[in-house]
Amino acid sequence: MPPGPEPRSRRTGRRPGDSGAREAILAAAKAAFADLGFDGTTVRGIARTAEVDPALVHHYFGTKERLFVAAMELPVDPAAMIAGLLADGTDELGPRLVRTFLSVWDAPDDTSAFLGMLRSAVSHERSAAMLREFVSTAVLGRLLDALDTDQRPRRAALVGSQVVGLAMARYVLRLEPLASAPAEELTGPLGGTIQRYLTGPLD
Amino acid sequence: MPPGPEPRSRRTGRRPGDSGAREAILAAAKAAFADLGFDGTTVRGIARTAEVDPALVHHYFGTKERLFVAAMELPVDPAAMIAGLLADGTDELGPRLVRTFLSVWDAPDDTSAFLGMLRSAVSHERSAAMLREFVSTAVLGRLLDALDTDQRPRRAALVGSQVVGLAMARYVLRLEPLASAPAEELTGPLGGTIQRYLTGPLD
Repeated sequence: MPPGPEPRSRRTGRRPGDSGAREAILAAAKAAFADLGFDGTTVRGIARTAEVDPALVHHYFGTKERLFVAAMELPVDPAAMIAGLLADGTDELGPRLVRTFLSVWDAPDDTSAFLGMLRSAVSHERSAAMLREFVSTAVLGRLLDALDTDQRPRRAALVGSQVVGLAMARYVLRLEPLASAPAEELTGPLGGTIQRYLTGPLD
Repeated sequence: MPPGPEPRSRRTGRRPGDSGAREAILAAAKAAFADLGFDGTTVRGIARTAEVDPALVHHYFGTKERLFVAAMELPVDPAAMIAGLLADGTDELGPRLVRTFLSVWDAPDDTSAFLGMLRSAVSHERSAAMLREFVSTAVLGRLLDALDTDQRPRRAALVGSQVVGLAMARYVLRLEPLASAPAEELTGPLGGTIQRYLTGPLD
């Protein structure tokens, strides 16, 4: 840890054992992400609002990304998910990515959580920025760091467009037969598209 | 025209020359599409609410589709747009479709109108149904009627997923570099995807 001011927990009412500290951190994180976006939010700022030491935030939540996952009540940690996807290399990465996203989103509770984020992003510019920054950092950036291709930001955005479009068509617009199709019927065509965006020719 | 009851305009205060008739029809149409969806709305029902003869609705607006375009203040009539796209055959239809959609959506006023529909669809199940039914009938159905391929509903839904995903990535999430790219840089990769969904192998 870099040197910092004396831990604030000594000077405030909150200490590691405080039952309310975790909840205070989550509430502060939710507010900060909504106000400042993902990139603009700092663990230090959240700790200040929650009146705890920044080390306590790291103790409970690890990274800023993991704190975001907890604050937004996301069903999975994208970092772990992407690591799992990349463990088997980049061949067939597109179909595996589609299969993995659908396995998460198809669970009814998780569909709601995800739709909540989409609704918010479509209605509020700040929520859109928050989702964009988080997806870029935690999902697409990490995915593309593992690839050895040209034009990586362009590829990432193209992948994003088809993944978000799949979610919109299946869960929001409910375009049939895509809305009711078993996941395995979608991994072929959509996975093929995403594989081309990731590693194929772009024209 | 099928035989029907005596024209209502004779029995109400509204006649073809009434300055308020067109506005009354549009207001009734907006309410009907919102309440009943596109498929559930009838010209006869709109005429009844607006207290005009159904023939007057057809006189002002032609088809139910064209009335929808007017009531939702859409910047283009999809029927005319699709006819234009199909005039040059189905080779390169994917890239032409991307180019045409972007030329409409990139106009700032039209971006707002379109975003309004997307916002509404993401937040309200009935708006989602309305958009789905209209897009299926007026855009995708018409496009696929012109194609000679198998699995047409599945192809239509796949095209819809990439088109909606493009709109979400470019205008809502603003994923760079896709959000700021000139339209011509997007027609290659996205047009290629849509062409495959329309006429290529699906696995």
